Amino acid sequence: MYKIVLMRHGESTWNLENRFTGWTDVDLTPKGVAEAAQAGKLLKEAGYTFDLAYTSVLKRAIRTLWGTLDAMDMMWLPVVNDWRLNERHYGALQGLNKAETAAQYGDEQVLVWRRSYDTPPNPLAADDARTSFHDPRYAGLGRAQIPLTECLKDTVARVMPAWDDSIAPAIRAGKKILISAHGNSLRALIKMLDGISDDDIVNLNIPNGQPLVYELDADLKPIRHYYLGDQSAIEAALNAVASQGKAK
Amino acid sequence: MYKIVLMRHGESTWNLENRFTGWTDVDLTPKGVAEAAQAGKLLKEAGYTFDLAYTSVLKRAIRTLWGTLDAMDMMWLPVVNDWRLNERHYGALQGLNKAETAAQYGDEQVLVWRRSYDTPPNPLAADDARTSFHDPRYAGLGRAQIPLTECLKDTVARVMPAWDDSIAPAIRAGKKILISAHGNSLRALIKMLDGISDDDIVNLNIPNGQPLVYELDADLKPIRHYYLGDQSAIEAALNAVASQGKAK
Repeated sequence: MYKIVLMRHGESTWNLENRFTGWTDVDLTPKGVAEAAQAGKLLKEAGYTFDLAYTSVLKRAIRTLWGTLDAMDMMWLPVVNDWRLNERHYGALQGLNKAETAAQYGDEQVLVWRRSYDTPPNPLAADDARTSFHDPRYAGLGRAQIPLTECLKDTVARVMPAWDDSIAPAIRAGKKILISAHGNSLRALIKMLDGISDDDIVNLNIPNGQPLVYELDADLKPIRHYYLGDQSAIEAALNAVASQGKAK
Repeated sequence: MYKIVLMRHGESTWNLENRFTGWTDVDLTPKGVAEAAQAGKLLKEAGYTFDLAYTSVLKRAIRTLWGTLDAMDMMWLPVVNDWRLNERHYGALQGLNKAETAAQYGDEQVLVWRRSYDTPPNPLAADDARTSFHDPRYAGLGRAQIPLTECLKDTVARVMPAWDDSIAPAIRAGKKILISAHGNSLRALIKMLDGISDDDIVNLNIPNGQPLVYELDADLKPIRHYYLGDQSAIEAALNAVASQGKAK
């Protein structure tokens, strides 16, 4: 039996400002930093150790990982930074306030953009300053690999190869793995692990900064999963995520 | 022509307490954290970018790297944590105060232990709680690879394979490299790069937290080297390092 730990980054500045973030490289808030340290403390107290960590190339996930490893006294842990674990690209919505967008287009349209499985928001224009074409962290990628927008289906399509080529082989090799990533890249992983339908996955919420343990069988099929820590705090965090897209 | 940047970690708690540290995993002081941020600021202002970073498995070097990358807005940089870049193992001296040790054994004996090329301090006993045998970060190593003491010659012998097998090939592949390590693992690298004799290398001092640039030719032979930043501050830092082993 294998065990992996998934973690969505702690609260970011744009979680706090309720803005569509996507590939924008915003930082954690002080609360987000504290959530990362608390996650590390929980993991350490529960006796978890790791051989390898995965994260995205976005600093909110990386700083969450760093804070967690620091609190576990495991700063030496090898880390793989994989762009394929990035948040879903939010296209032309990146930078817009969710409540304002909802007030303008209606809750329903925003819910479609946020939660439709296969309808992406409008893409960024190729010459928009918000594209990632000139960002050195993506220098190894071809233009076609760098998205201008994504629906969750697109995110699943790039997260899955990271699982198949890199994470799953490491798990099978016996490595204990921690993944610090994002709401939608984790949703993509969980969709695959638990075989969740295209319709149901969009309603799955993942709270910030809470270690989510998946126990897997020899075929890497989930046996069960659970959040570590105070369950009422997790419930509150889940409700906060679910209400982010509302106008008021 | 290639360019690499070497950096000794910022001030550690045991630098401040003037104790022999070696493989003991002490943290940075607030001053050390500030030095790391300042190093990143210097590198960024001077237009440096990197493709890959190397560090040890000791948190004073890792936190220095993290602080530097954070200040450069390059937290996403791939990092290799290589135990072979660890500080020299100080054997039975680990944890002892340098000035007290000098008062007891004399400045000269301490200078031999600190700076003789091939005379190691007394080894730790195999059952000493200070050994690294049960530390998970060294779990992949055989017992014979985990030192109980080292002279600089021993450190050179383990640093060189890290250069030959990993760092040099990455440089030749065109990767721009930052190395955050320790006084003696950097001394080992510099000895090899500059062809410094066994006698002379022990007098080379490296200040904490100052980016040291080496420009290398196509055969990875040094063309020149220089510290970035305020040269009088570097002079002062060098003098501070040189006087650490004195009784008063």
